[in-house]
Amino acid sequence: MAALTSARLLPLALTMGDPAGIGPEIAIRAWRDREKSALPPFAVFADLNLMRATCRSFGIDCDIVSIADAGAAADVFPRALPIVDVPLVRAAEAGSPDSCNGPAVILAIRRAVEAVAAGQASAVVTNPIAKSVLYDAGFQYAGHTEYLGALASELWPAEPADPVMMLASPELRVVPVTIHVPLKSVPLLLTSEKIVKTARIVAASLKRDFGIAAPRLVVTGLNPHAGEDGALGSEDRDIIAPAIAALQSEGIDATGPHSADTLFHAAARETYDAAIAMYHDQALIPIKTLAFDSGVNATLGLPFVRTSPDHGTAFGIAGKGTASPASLIAAMKLAAEMSTRRARPVAS
Amino acid sequence: MAALTSARLLPLALTMGDPAGIGPEIAIRAWRDREKSALPPFAVFADLNLMRATCRSFGIDCDIVSIADAGAAADVFPRALPIVDVPLVRAAEAGSPDSCNGPAVILAIRRAVEAVAAGQASAVVTNPIAKSVLYDAGFQYAGHTEYLGALASELWPAEPADPVMMLASPELRVVPVTIHVPLKSVPLLLTSEKIVKTARIVAASLKRDFGIAAPRLVVTGLNPHAGEDGALGSEDRDIIAPAIAALQSEGIDATGPHSADTLFHAAARETYDAAIAMYHDQALIPIKTLAFDSGVNATLGLPFVRTSPDHGTAFGIAGKGTASPASLIAAMKLAAEMSTRRARPVAS
Repeated sequence: MAALTSARLLPLALTMGDPAGIGPEIAIRAWRDREKSALPPFAVFADLNLMRATCRSFGIDCDIVSIADAGAAADVFPRALPIVDVPLVRAAEAGSPDSCNGPAVILAIRRAVEAVAAGQASAVVTNPIAKSVLYDAGFQYAGHTEYLGALASELWPAEPADPVMMLASPELRVVPVTIHVPLKSVPLLLTSEKIVKTARIVAASLKRDFGIAAPRLVVTGLNPHAGEDGALGSEDRDIIAPAIAALQSEGIDATGPHSADTLFHAAARETYDAAIAMYHDQALIPIKTLAFDSGVNATLGLPFVRTSPDHGTAFGIAGKGTASPASLIAAMKLAAEMSTRRARPVAS
Repeated sequence: MAALTSARLLPLALTMGDPAGIGPEIAIRAWRDREKSALPPFAVFADLNLMRATCRSFGIDCDIVSIADAGAAADVFPRALPIVDVPLVRAAEAGSPDSCNGPAVILAIRRAVEAVAAGQASAVVTNPIAKSVLYDAGFQYAGHTEYLGALASELWPAEPADPVMMLASPELRVVPVTIHVPLKSVPLLLTSEKIVKTARIVAASLKRDFGIAAPRLVVTGLNPHAGEDGALGSEDRDIIAPAIAALQSEGIDATGPHSADTLFHAAARETYDAAIAMYHDQALIPIKTLAFDSGVNATLGLPFVRTSPDHGTAFGIAGKGTASPASLIAAMKLAAEMSTRRARPVAS
C-alpha cells in the first residue's frame, strides 16, 4: 500500500503547450476551480513570467509560485499555482505563435516527462501545441505522441513504448488505428497486424488504467456497412475480420467488423468498453459529437500515463478570456485516476 | 389556395418494402398510433393477405380495407388501414426473404410513384428493401434511389431527376456526396462538380421543401482537420475549396471545408441548416449517433417527394413484435410537411 499512497500524493506535470495558445489561461482557470472540480495537485511546466502576465491580464486572483521541481507542488497547490520555470526566449503574445519559443515548448514536455521518470510527478498532462510552429523550430517528430514515445524509450529503456491514442469521455472511449494521414492512405496503411497491436494495447490499458476486469472491444469496418460481404470493399473481410479472429484467439473480447454508423448511439455504447476505429474521422466524429467539451486524449501503451485536452491551441480565442478549461480539467482528472490505478498492485 | 388544400388532403403512398422484413408490421403499428402521432392519411401498397396476416399475428385490432387507388385512402384511414393490393407470388415468412417476391416489391414502388404522378397521392414513403434479394429477381438498379430516379424520368419526362440522399432529424440534416462505395474509391470519385451539383440541389430543397428562406450550408473536408493546408491530403484544397467558391459565386451560402469532427456538436449545429459530407460514414455516423430512432432518409432532387425510415429490413427481428415504427412515423410526417410546402405557391 505504500506505493499507492505515495502515488496519490504525487502531483501531475502539466505542460504550458504553445504559449500563444489557450494553454496558459486554461491552466490558471483550472487551478482557480481546483476545489469545485476536485482537482488533484499539479505543477505547470511553463515560463514563470508568462503565467504571471496571464493571471494579471485576466484579473484572476492567483498567486504564482516558482518551485524547483514538481515534487514540491502538493504543498504549494492549495494556496498558489506551482510553476517549474521553463523560460521563453521572447514574451508570448496571445494568438500570435512565435517559432523562437518552440525550443521552450519542447523542453517543457521533456521536463514534465523527466519529472515522472524521477518520481516527482504521477503523470503528464499536455496542453496543445502547434506542430507547424515547432517544425519551424526544428522539431523532428510528427507530433506530441511521437515525441513522448521517443522520450519514453530514452527514459525507460527497458519498457515497451507503443503509443496509442484513445479519446475518452463519460459517453465513449474510441481509438483510431490510423490517425493523421490523408484519407486515401488509410486503406493502404491498414493491416491486420496494426489492428491487433492497437487492440491489444487498448485491452491491456482498460484493465490496468481503467480498472475494467474483462474489457469488451468493438471494431468498426472500413467501408459503408462494413463492406456488405465484400460488395462495398474488401478490407473489412480481408484485413479487419482476420484481426478480430486473432484477437479472439488470444482471449480478447473483440467483435466486428461492425458498420460504423450504427455503433455510437446510446444503446450500442452500452455493449462495449472501447471502440477501435479505422481512421481519424470515424473515431473523432462520434466523440466530438457526443462530448465536445469533455473529451480527453489519453496516450496508452507508454510506460507513463499521459493525457491532454481534446482541442487545439485555439489561437483565434487565446487571450480573450473565453476559453473553457473543461477538457483540461477532465484530462487532469483522468490522468490522476489512471496513474492511481496503475500504481496499485495488481490483484492476482 | 385550391392546390394547397387538395395537396393537404392527398394521402401518402407507403410501399410494403421487403415483405419478410419489418415493413409490414411497422406500417400497421404506425396506423395504430395515427392519432397519437398526428399522422397524415396513408395508403400501403402491399399484398392484402400479407397485411391481414401480419395484423392477426400481432393481435393488433386493425381493420384492413382494400382500395382501388390511393385517392380513396383519406376516407378510409380514420377507421381502417387502406391497402392498394400488390399481390405476392408466395406468402412471406418474416425473417426469410424470398426472391420470388422481388417483382412484387419492385411493383409496389412503381405503383406508389405512379399514384403521385396521377395526382392520387402527395408523396412516396418507402419501407426498406433488401437489395441482394431484388438483384436475384433481376432488379437492374443499384438501389431504391436509382430506381426512383428512373421512374421520375419516365413519369415526369420534362423535369430534372437528380436524386440526392439527405438524412434528416430534428438535430441535424446531412447529405453525403458519395454514398455506397468502398472508402478507397471516395477520393477518386470526388469532384468539384459533384459537390457543387449536390449542394445546389440541397440549397434548392431547403427553400422549397423545408421552408428555409436563406439556407446555410457547411461542407466537410475529406481528410483529418480538412487536410491542414495540404499537409494531410490535397483534396480539401484542390477539390472541395473550389467547389465552395463556385457555390458562393452563385449566391449560395456555403462555407468550408470544415474539419468534420468538430462540425456536429450542439453549438456547431446551430450555425447551419445542412451539412454536405464527403462519404457515407462521415454523414451517417453523426446522425445515427444523435438520432438513432428518429432519423429519416429524404430523397431530394426528384419531381416528387420521397422519404424513408433510416433503417434496413431488420430481418433479424422481423415478426418478433419488437420493431419500432418511430423512424417510419418520422418519415411520413416529414414527407407530408415537404409535399405540403412544395405544393404551396412560392411567395414572390
